[in-house]
Amino acid sequence: MNRSVIQYILGYVLMIEGILLGIPCLTALIYWEKEGFCYLGVAIFCFLVGRLMRCKKPNNDIFYLKEGCLTTALSWIFLSFFGCLPFILTKEIPFLPDALFETISGFTTTGASILSDVESLSHCSIMWRSFTHWIGGMGVLVFLLAIIPMSGGSHINLMRAESPGPSVGKLVPKVKATAQILYLIYFVLTIVEFVFLLLGGMSVFDAINTSVATAGTGGFGIYNDSLANFSPYIQWVVTIFMILFGVNFNAYYFIIYKQLGKALKMEEVKGYFIIIAVSTGIIFINILHSCANAFDALTHSAFQVASIITTTGFSTTDFNMWPETSKTILVLLMFIGACAGSTGGGIKVSRFIIMIKTVIKELRCYIHPKSIQKINMDEKPVAHEVVRSVNVYLITFIALFVGSIFLVSLDGKDLTTNFTAVAATLNNIGPGLNLVGPTENFGLFSPLSKFVLMFDMLAGRLELFPLLILFHPSVWKEGK
Amino acid sequence: MNRSVIQYILGYVLMIEGILLGIPCLTALIYWEKEGFCYLGVAIFCFLVGRLMRCKKPNNDIFYLKEGCLTTALSWIFLSFFGCLPFILTKEIPFLPDALFETISGFTTTGASILSDVESLSHCSIMWRSFTHWIGGMGVLVFLLAIIPMSGGSHINLMRAESPGPSVGKLVPKVKATAQILYLIYFVLTIVEFVFLLLGGMSVFDAINTSVATAGTGGFGIYNDSLANFSPYIQWVVTIFMILFGVNFNAYYFIIYKQLGKALKMEEVKGYFIIIAVSTGIIFINILHSCANAFDALTHSAFQVASIITTTGFSTTDFNMWPETSKTILVLLMFIGACAGSTGGGIKVSRFIIMIKTVIKELRCYIHPKSIQKINMDEKPVAHEVVRSVNVYLITFIALFVGSIFLVSLDGKDLTTNFTAVAATLNNIGPGLNLVGPTENFGLFSPLSKFVLMFDMLAGRLELFPLLILFHPSVWKEGK
Repeated sequence: MNRSVIQYILGYVLMIEGILLGIPCLTALIYWEKEGFCYLGVAIFCFLVGRLMRCKKPNNDIFYLKEGCLTTALSWIFLSFFGCLPFILTKEIPFLPDALFETISGFTTTGASILSDVESLSHCSIMWRSFTHWIGGMGVLVFLLAIIPMSGGSHINLMRAESPGPSVGKLVPKVKATAQILYLIYFVLTIVEFVFLLLGGMSVFDAINTSVATAGTGGFGIYNDSLANFSPYIQWVVTIFMILFGVNFNAYYFIIYKQLGKALKMEEVKGYFIIIAVSTGIIFINILHSCANAFDALTHSAFQVASIITTTGFSTTDFNMWPETSKTILVLLMFIGACAGSTGGGIKVSRFIIMIKTVIKELRCYIHPKSIQKINMDEKPVAHEVVRSVNVYLITFIALFVGSIFLVSLDGKDLTTNFTAVAATLNNIGPGLNLVGPTENFGLFSPLSKFVLMFDMLAGRLELFPLLILFHPSVWKEGK
Repeated sequence: MNRSVIQYILGYVLMIEGILLGIPCLTALIYWEKEGFCYLGVAIFCFLVGRLMRCKKPNNDIFYLKEGCLTTALSWIFLSFFGCLPFILTKEIPFLPDALFETISGFTTTGASILSDVESLSHCSIMWRSFTHWIGGMGVLVFLLAIIPMSGGSHINLMRAESPGPSVGKLVPKVKATAQILYLIYFVLTIVEFVFLLLGGMSVFDAINTSVATAGTGGFGIYNDSLANFSPYIQWVVTIFMILFGVNFNAYYFIIYKQLGKALKMEEVKGYFIIIAVSTGIIFINILHSCANAFDALTHSAFQVASIITTTGFSTTDFNMWPETSKTILVLLMFIGACAGSTGGGIKVSRFIIMIKTVIKELRCYIHPKSIQKINMDEKPVAHEVVRSVNVYLITFIALFVGSIFLVSLDGKDLTTNFTAVAATLNNIGPGLNLVGPTENFGLFSPLSKFVLMFDMLAGRLELFPLLILFHPSVWKEGK
C-alpha cells in the first residue's frame, strides 16, 4: 500500500480546510465577533498540520482503487474532526459527539442538526456550518483534483470513490479538466441562486448561507423554522435550485457544449423530473383541503418534494403533520434520492432505473428462457459490472440500514423515529418523521446512536464501500 | 404455450380441493352443524368442475418454466377462489373480498385475519380455515406430483415454481419420489406435534387445528387471544414445532438417511438457529423487567421469535406493547424468514447468507482487484445464476413492498401500521404492529388495500415471479 501518497493528499486536504476556515474568520471580522479568534486558531492549526504532513514527498503517486477509497474515507474523517474544533472552542457546541455530529452532517450535506436553537449561534459559526455543505456537496477531493497538478492516470480512483452514482464517467479525457468543469458549473449555479435570492429581498448573509446550503443539497437552515418565514418567491427560487442541483451534472455539460439533444435523452434526468412531478401532484391533492389556497398547497408540496428527493432537507412547513399518504411518499422519496453525478444523496434515480430494468429483464427470461436479454440505458447497453455493483450496493445499503436501526432502537424511541432517522442520515437528507421531524432535532439521541448516525452519514455520502473498507483487516496490513 | 396441460393440471387441483373439502364436511357431521351442507355443496361443485376440466387429455405433457409458473399461479388463485365459497355461503364471512382475504391468508400460510371474533365460527369453518394452512404449507402442486403419475422430466418446473428458496434441489433423482418424501416428513411431524399437544391436555379438535396451523407455519388461531390462554407446556411444544417446521426439509432427509454430518454442516440451518438464539436472548433481557418471572420472559420471547421468524404468526402476548428494541428485532425477523425448503415464508435465511457473502466478496474485490473471488455455501461454490436470482429477488421484493405501502397508505393509516401490514402479508406472517398488531385484525382496511394485501400474500408464498408473470402481456399471446 502506498502510504506516503495517502499522507501527502491528506496534508493537502487539511491545508485546503485551513484556507476555507478563512471564510468564517472574515465573517467574524465583518460582524466583529470574538468567536473569530477560535476559527483563526483552528485555521492556522489545520494549515500547519497539513503542511507538516506534506513535508515528505511520496516516492510515487500511483495508487489503486484501495488507496483511492482509503484516502477518501480518511479525508472526510480528518475534515470532520478538524472542522468541528471551532464549535467546541467557541463553546457553542461544547460536547464533542454533538460538535462532530453537526460537522459530519454539514460535510455530508445531510443537514440533520442537534441544535434546538440555531439562531443563537454566532454569524461566523452559522457561515462555517453552511459552508461545510458547499465543500461537501461536490467533494473536497474533486476540488483537490481541480487545482493541484498530479501526474499518473490513476487519480480517477479518487474521483470514483468520492463521486456519487453507479458508474463515474469522465466528462473529458483528463480528470483535472473534468473536476474543473464540475466545480465551474457548481460555482456559477450557486452565484445565480444567490442573485435570485437577493432580488427577493433576502439579506446578503442569509442569501449566501441559503445558496451554499442549497447548492450542496445540505439543508442546514439559519432560522429555527428553516425557510417557513420567507416569501413564496424565495421558497420557489429555492425549490427550483434544489431541483437543479439534483440533476446529473453531465446534463449541464451537454447543454454548455450545445448537445441539448443528448441532455434531453438522459433517462435518469427524465425519470427524476417525472418522479418529482407525480409526487408533487399526489401530495398537492392530498394536502389541498388543509391549506389556505391552491397556490399555498402547490408551494408546500413542490418545495417539500424537491427538498426530500434532492436530499436537501429544508422545510417550509411541518410535514410531520401531513396526511399519511403524503408522509409515505416523502419516506419513499428519501430512498430514491437525486441523480447520480449531482450533489444530492440517496440511492440515486439511475440505480432505481437499472433495478426496474433488471426485474423486467428477469420476467422476460422466465417467458423466453433461451433469448438473450440486455439492459440498455440512454440507448447504450449497461455493462454487466455496473448492474452487479448496483445489486451489491443495494444489499450493502440494506445491511447497513438494518444494523443501524437495530443499534438506534436500543434508545427505546418509536419505530417511525428510528426508521426515518436512519433513512434521513444514510440518505443525507436531514429531517425525518416523529421525534426527528422538521421541527425537532437529533439532540435527543444517546451518544452511541449519534455515532451510528454519523457513520451512516459518512457511509451514505461516500456510497458505502470507501468507508466500509476501513473495517477490513487486510487493508491495514503492510505490503501491496 | 401448452394450454391443454395447464387446464388438465388445474382440473386435478380442483378435484383435490373437492376431496379435501370433505374434512370440514366430516367435522360438521361430528358436531352436527348445518353449515356442513354448504361445504358438501362446494366440495361436489369443485370436484365436478375439476373433472370437467380434465375431460380433454393434453396432447403432450411437456411444459417449460413459463407454463410451470403460470400453472402454479392459476392453481393458487383457483384454490383460493373456490376455497372461499363456503365462508360466503354459510354467511360467516358474507363479503367476497373478506372471504377471499381469509382464504388466501390461509392457503399462503399467512394467518392474517379479518375476523374480530374467531370463536363465533362453526367448527367446520374453523377446521377448513386451519386446514388451508396445511395444504398451502407444502403446496398443493407438490402434493399432486406426489400422487399422480406424470411422464416427461419437466415437472421439476412445477416444483420449482411452488417451492420456496433460491435453488430448488431434488432430494432424489425422481420428482415424484422427492415430493413423496417431503409430504411424508411433513405428515409425520404434524402427527408427532398433535400427540404432544394431546399429552398437554388439549382437546382433539384444538390439537388438530393447532398442529396443522403450526405445520404450515400459518398461524390462524382458534381463539381470539391466539395461544395466550394455553399452558406454558403447550406454548413450548408449539415453539419447538414452529422452529422445526422452519428448518430446511433437506436436513430431515439427511437425518433419515443417516447422513447426520451433512445435516449439521448446512450453513443455512446453522444460521437459522443462531439468529433464533441471539434474538431470543436480546428480547429476553429487554422484556425481563415487565414479566412475572424469568421463565415467563423466556417463554414469551422464544415463542414470539419462533412465531415471527418461521412466519407462523401465533401469539401468546400482545408484543405490540413490548419495548421498541424488541419490536424492532421482530420487524427485522419478519423479513429474514425461515429456511428455504421449509414451509415458512419471508426472504429466507439462505438468501441472506448469500447476500452477506456477496458484500464480503465485494469488499475483498476492492482490496485485491485482481484476485478471483467465489462465493461458497456448504463447502460448494454457489452458481452465478443463483447469486443473480437472489439479487433480482431482492430488488423485486423491494419494488413490490414499496408499491404496496404506497397503495395501502391511501387509506390514511399510520406508517408503522402500513409498513408492518405489508411486511406481514408479503412475508406470510400474519400480525404486524399498531393497528394490525396481534390483538387487532385486518378488517379495518378498504377493499382496495385488501386486494393489494391479498396479492402480496400470494406473491410472497410463490416467491414473486410466478405471480408477476401473469401481468406480462406476452404470456397471454398464443404460440410458444
